[in-house]
Amino acid sequence: MKIYETQTAPNPRRVRIFLAEKGVKDVEYVQVDIKAGDNLKPEVLAKNPLGKVPYLELDDGTVITETTAICRYFEELYPENPLMGSTPQEKAQVEMWQRLCDIYFMLQVGMCFQHTTGYFKDRMTPVPEWGVEAGKNAVKFLSVVENQLADNTYVAGENFSIADIILLCAVDFARVIKIRMGDEHPNLQRWYELVNTRESVKA
Amino acid sequence: MKIYETQTAPNPRRVRIFLAEKGVKDVEYVQVDIKAGDNLKPEVLAKNPLGKVPYLELDDGTVITETTAICRYFEELYPENPLMGSTPQEKAQVEMWQRLCDIYFMLQVGMCFQHTTGYFKDRMTPVPEWGVEAGKNAVKFLSVVENQLADNTYVAGENFSIADIILLCAVDFARVIKIRMGDEHPNLQRWYELVNTRESVKA
Repeated sequence: MKIYETQTAPNPRRVRIFLAEKGVKDVEYVQVDIKAGDNLKPEVLAKNPLGKVPYLELDDGTVITETTAICRYFEELYPENPLMGSTPQEKAQVEMWQRLCDIYFMLQVGMCFQHTTGYFKDRMTPVPEWGVEAGKNAVKFLSVVENQLADNTYVAGENFSIADIILLCAVDFARVIKIRMGDEHPNLQRWYELVNTRESVKA
Repeated sequence: MKIYETQTAPNPRRVRIFLAEKGVKDVEYVQVDIKAGDNLKPEVLAKNPLGKVPYLELDDGTVITETTAICRYFEELYPENPLMGSTPQEKAQVEMWQRLCDIYFMLQVGMCFQHTTGYFKDRMTPVPEWGVEAGKNAVKFLSVVENQLADNTYVAGENFSIADIILLCAVDFARVIKIRMGDEHPNLQRWYELVNTRESVKA
């Protein structure tokens, strides 16, 4: 089984941390140079039509793209030490926070980065005005998660989950567009220190 | 248990179809006027900080937002007739296609709608140029799913799943911004006719 990824990009880091938490070691990592566009070569697009990283290739050739789908595969394969909840209600709450952190923070940070820096301008049309708005959306979401962390140890409740992994990777990546936690986010800062004590974050 | 929703909006329809497929009937639906901003009233934001619909309120007061998280709750509660896959590989493939249809189509359609029409301009800053780009992204994705449906009966394989529900609701909603399947999408049209034979689509 192989994971094609880019060491410095935020989404591959999510999968590496997830697998480190799960103790999964039988995966080979293959580096892809996305800046050079190696992810958009015909042979990659034939199996991964959007060319996004990371993607997982199983031994039978099946390709799974999308970070949370790759994580779901390993969660189902190795259900011990759950990172996506245990009961129906927990699973729903983890999925809710995972999506909120992904769509209202990580995605906004990513669009702000792409549209304001023009990093991928060879393959998309940056709209800087939209990039600025997306950045504002990301900043607004920090208040939402700040409130959530006032009453909860971790993003989705009392257990560390995939939602924490997503938020951690996104908060770290957000530095490139100068979005940072501030004095108005004491709970977020408490949480950030806590999750950074885990060995897996170095993965 | 109550679902707060807006009958005419695309995301609530996803949940209604999902529950119709599952045969879940013990849910009360409460209408929310999002155009009037009733979803942004302080009492709603206190339990649903982003004010999005639909949201599920359990009898103990727990609130689950995000369409797929609500669906996940019912999938876990009633695992018979799975709509999110059965094996680890199927679950990952369904999650992958569910996310692809959601992020690269539904979300793009939604942003195109909001940014080009100014429908929510009282609560966001529309960037029309970005709306146009988002619409182009949505059109591009139709080719991706057209290819997928050349080899598969349903979006995520041989079984009807949540990915079909998302795509159906998004394709129908996309008409408002004049994005439609065309002659270049014969497989998509075959799929569209097939899923529309299901009783659940009227939910």
